[in-house]
Order: sequence, then structure tokens, then C-alpha cells
Amino acid sequence: MRFIVGTGVSGKGVYLVDGEWAWNLTVVDSAVGTELSALIQGDVNLGDVIASKDKTDAEPLSSLTPGLPVDRPGKIICLGLNYVDHIKEGGYDIPSYPALFMRCTTSMIPAGAPMIRPSCSEQLDYEAELMVIIGKGGKHIREQDALEHVFGYTIFNDGSVREYQRKTHQWTPGKNFDGTGPVGPVVVTPDELPDGADGLKIESRVGQEILQSATTSDMLWSVAKTIATISEFTTLQPGDMLAMGTPPGVGHAKTPQRWLRPGETVEVEIEGIGICANPVVAEEDIVATEAAE
Amino acid sequence: MRFIVGTGVSGKGVYLVDGEWAWNLTVVDSAVGTELSALIQGDVNLGDVIASKDKTDAEPLSSLTPGLPVDRPGKIICLGLNYVDHIKEGGYDIPSYPALFMRCTTSMIPAGAPMIRPSCSEQLDYEAELMVIIGKGGKHIREQDALEHVFGYTIFNDGSVREYQRKTHQWTPGKNFDGTGPVGPVVVTPDELPDGADGLKIESRVGQEILQSATTSDMLWSVAKTIATISEFTTLQPGDMLAMGTPPGVGHAKTPQRWLRPGETVEVEIEGIGICANPVVAEEDIVATEAAE
Repeated sequence: MRFIVGTGVSGKGVYLVDGEWAWNLTVVDSAVGTELSALIQGDVNLGDVIASKDKTDAEPLSSLTPGLPVDRPGKIICLGLNYVDHIKEGGYDIPSYPALFMRCTTSMIPAGAPMIRPSCSEQLDYEAELMVIIGKGGKHIREQDALEHVFGYTIFNDGSVREYQRKTHQWTPGKNFDGTGPVGPVVVTPDELPDGADGLKIESRVGQEILQSATTSDMLWSVAKTIATISEFTTLQPGDMLAMGTPPGVGHAKTPQRWLRPGETVEVEIEGIGICANPVVAEEDIVATEAAE
Repeated sequence: MRFIVGTGVSGKGVYLVDGEWAWNLTVVDSAVGTELSALIQGDVNLGDVIASKDKTDAEPLSSLTPGLPVDRPGKIICLGLNYVDHIKEGGYDIPSYPALFMRCTTSMIPAGAPMIRPSCSEQLDYEAELMVIIGKGGKHIREQDALEHVFGYTIFNDGSVREYQRKTHQWTPGKNFDGTGPVGPVVVTPDELPDGADGLKIESRVGQEILQSATTSDMLWSVAKTIATISEFTTLQPGDMLAMGTPPGVGHAKTPQRWLRPGETVEVEIEGIGICANPVVAEEDIVATEAAE
């Protein structure tokens, strides 16, 4: 199944997507809620809701304005270095354990929303990533059982302000600027993709310019291995998100360096999932617009 | 004012503390809720509630079982290196920007709850810290205005599993083991403490053994400067928590190294705030107890 959390003709809701059409499941049953948490936690019988989807009209997919798939995930854990060629371009050694950091919800934005280049730095960079949304929680999850804990897969652009990422050895500031982490719009359940979302083409682009192009099979830590590794130290909860790291081609490693500029639209595409596209806007312009409103 | 979120004779609630007595404000007005979020967000008129506290009986402070001050803070941002002598004992250079990392809520526990030594490592370490709870949110907060954004101060033990903290350059895993971050029990409003909680004695102990002893005036980044620095990149929200880093004396820097052992009780005390004491329990024993229940 394919879902988009968003606002359409019939209002805010969780939309079931089929081709170019979408059904607002929240209209079918208000218990579905206006983001994915209720579905993830199994608070509603999804089969019954979908069987009743004719209670509402199909809406054109293009009419939806996406929201965040999960409003307030318990945690967002990100792999820093998970594609060998990206590790090399950053000047790091191949690690024997994943480099993990966290993002906070204030840094996350829906597909389509402005991606903010902060006033304090021009070094806003893109990072195409596969994002895992945890379904069933757990601790000490074994690698062979790990994929049973996935609710779905979506697209993530791990937007990074490089000079703040490298102000110290801890990457937190550069990875947590407001409005730098686009996620979505489509969440695809595992049955529609290869096991662990393996072998999918992943790309980032600005217009015709291809910035990154790789396949998820180049990941050092697979989705299953990542879930096993992380759940050794922390209890994964429904709705938690795991960002799987980015392939080579990020802007700070290009010659000359290639930062995102206001006015551009950056797209991340993953085969079988979709496209997450966001316009880049300068913080000064957003502040000015808000002041004028 | 001094608050403890916890469970007493009259049930779960937000207790106002005066000396050895506590009043359950949640009984006075249910809008207070069962953790601090409603007070922090100003959803209730605290003055009115306190003026009516005689509607409920005072309970002995000693009868309270503390809970988490805020159930699910939006973010918990921690300073890694903020006391010069602790930076030196860890082998790091004095930074020009704070080393920041995040903790997730699953790692946090109330004062009094078992602090879990994981089955995968014996290197469980203590870190006495001042914890700031944000009241009024904001972005680009100026240092001279920053203290107006503090709701209160409490105590934090930034429990760290050192071998996982240093598996890579990113500290996230070692700082996020389940049940390793005791916080509380008392939250003190700023009017009861020096500006920025400056100049307070801070200590950690196991029994008569003093592990760390310092003053908060040794912090490189003051509370005000920290709020200004962090709010340059992220919008602070009511209930967000900022952990202010630890003074020298942590176990991994002692000779021989001094890890917390099951059966010990570790205490962190900050002058004018109180004591956060937690027994150390082996994960194996907790799993065995849960299995037997």
C-alpha cells in the first residue's frame, strides 16, 4: 500500500494512493487520524477501512499538499556514513560500527515545503536517503526478525549545513537547522518493495543536474542490520524513524563545492517509492514574508 | 517555586514542594495535568492554583515517587564538553563551539528508578549535570534575553556507556542506552536560584565516595550563552531540555577506571536544587524480573 499524509479537497487526512488517485481514509473512519500514528500502532483495522474506501470520493493525487508522515516521532536516528564512496569523499575511514546521530522534529518538513537556507551560512547541502518508519517496536531485535518491525519506507533529504556540522566533532547543529529535513511524501509498505528496500535506484537532482545517483544495495548496513544494531541500545517504538545514510555526490565534496541556492528546487527520488521535491528559500525571505503577513 | 512530578498518596500529579511537604496541584485543578507541560505552556494560571492549594492535603515529601518532569520533550540537547577540566581528562581540545548531541526519551528515567547497566557492556559511567527546562520557546534568542526562556532547573545524570560512545566519532549510541539518563526529581523556578543557576556546587557520589565535585561557574558556556547558541539553528519549544555538561571526575578518566556497578546507588546533588539518586541494576536482572512477573 501507498499512503500520503496531507491535505486534499476533503481536508487533512491519511490518503491511500493508487496510481494518480487518492482516497482520504480519515473521512472513511476518523479513528485513522491525521497522520500515520494510529495506523502504525494498529489502533484501526486498516483492512476494514480500505474495504470501505468507496464511502469517500477519489481525489487527484496532484491536488494533495503533503504533511509530515508522523507528527512527532519518538526519535529520528540517522546513519552518517553508510555508502562506501560517500565515506571516502568525506575523508573518513570505513567504520566497523555505524556513525549515528539524531535529528529533532523541528528540523523536519514535508515534501513540497520550503527548505530553508539559514541566514548564518551558505553551506546548505542535500543528502538523498532512504527513510525507514518503524511499525512494531522492540529491543534486542535480531537481524533475521528485523524487517517485521518496518511499517514502511519513504524518502528523506538529510539537509545539512556543513560549516555547523563540522564546528566540532559532533554533527548535531549542522544536522538540525529548522526546515532542512524534507521527508515524504509517499510511505510505501514493505510488501510493495524488495526485502529491506534493497536494490533501489536513489538519486538527487536540481532540474536536469544529477547530483547523486546510486543504489540502496551499496549501503554498508542494510535496513535489517541497522535495526538490529540500534535496538541493542535503545527500544525502538512505533513511528520512530531511521535514516539510512546518503550515497556519494554531496555538494561539499564536489569541486567546486555545490551548495543549494534559494530559487532552486531539490528533488530526491527512490525507485518504487517516489519523489520528494522542495524549493530552497533563504531564511531572510521567509522572515520578511512572515513579517509582512 | 519547587515542583515534583510524581505519584503520592493522592495519586499522580504535579506537586508543589515546600520544605518537607508537598501539595498535589493536579487535585486542586485537573488542568494542571500529570507532568509539567501545561504549567510550562501557561495553559493554567499557576498563581490561582497555588492560592487554592488548601483544597488538598499536604503530603510528606518522602512519600512521593518521582516521575519524569516532562513526559515527551520535543528535544533533549546536551553539551558534551563544558567544564575545562573535564575536557582535559577526556583528551579533547578546548572547543570554540559546544560539542552538542541529543538524547531520546527512551533513555531517560525519573529519580529513584533503576539505572540500567546494559548486558553488552560494563562501562556504565555517571555524569553530574545541570538540566535546563525551556519555558517560552523561540529562535535567534539573544544572550541578554535568554534567561527569560527558562522555565526551571533540575538535576541530570548523563549516564554514558563509554565503549559505545566511542565506537565512532559520534557519541549517540553510548548516550542513548535505555534507562541510563536519570532526571529530576525537583524542578526549581529561576527566581529561587542565582541568575543562570550560576555558582552552584555540583557533586556526584556513591555512598561516601565523592566522584565529582565542582561548581556550575566552571561552565564554559553559561545557560544564557547556550540558549543563544542553540537557538541560532533550532527553534526551542516549551518543555525542551538542555543538559549543561559535566565537570571532571567521570569514571572512565579515573585510574583505575571506575564504572557503576549493580547494587550501588549513584547520587547527583546540585546546591539549591536537590539530589537525584538512582540504584544501578543489571539489565539481565531486570529482564529476569520482568519475565518472572
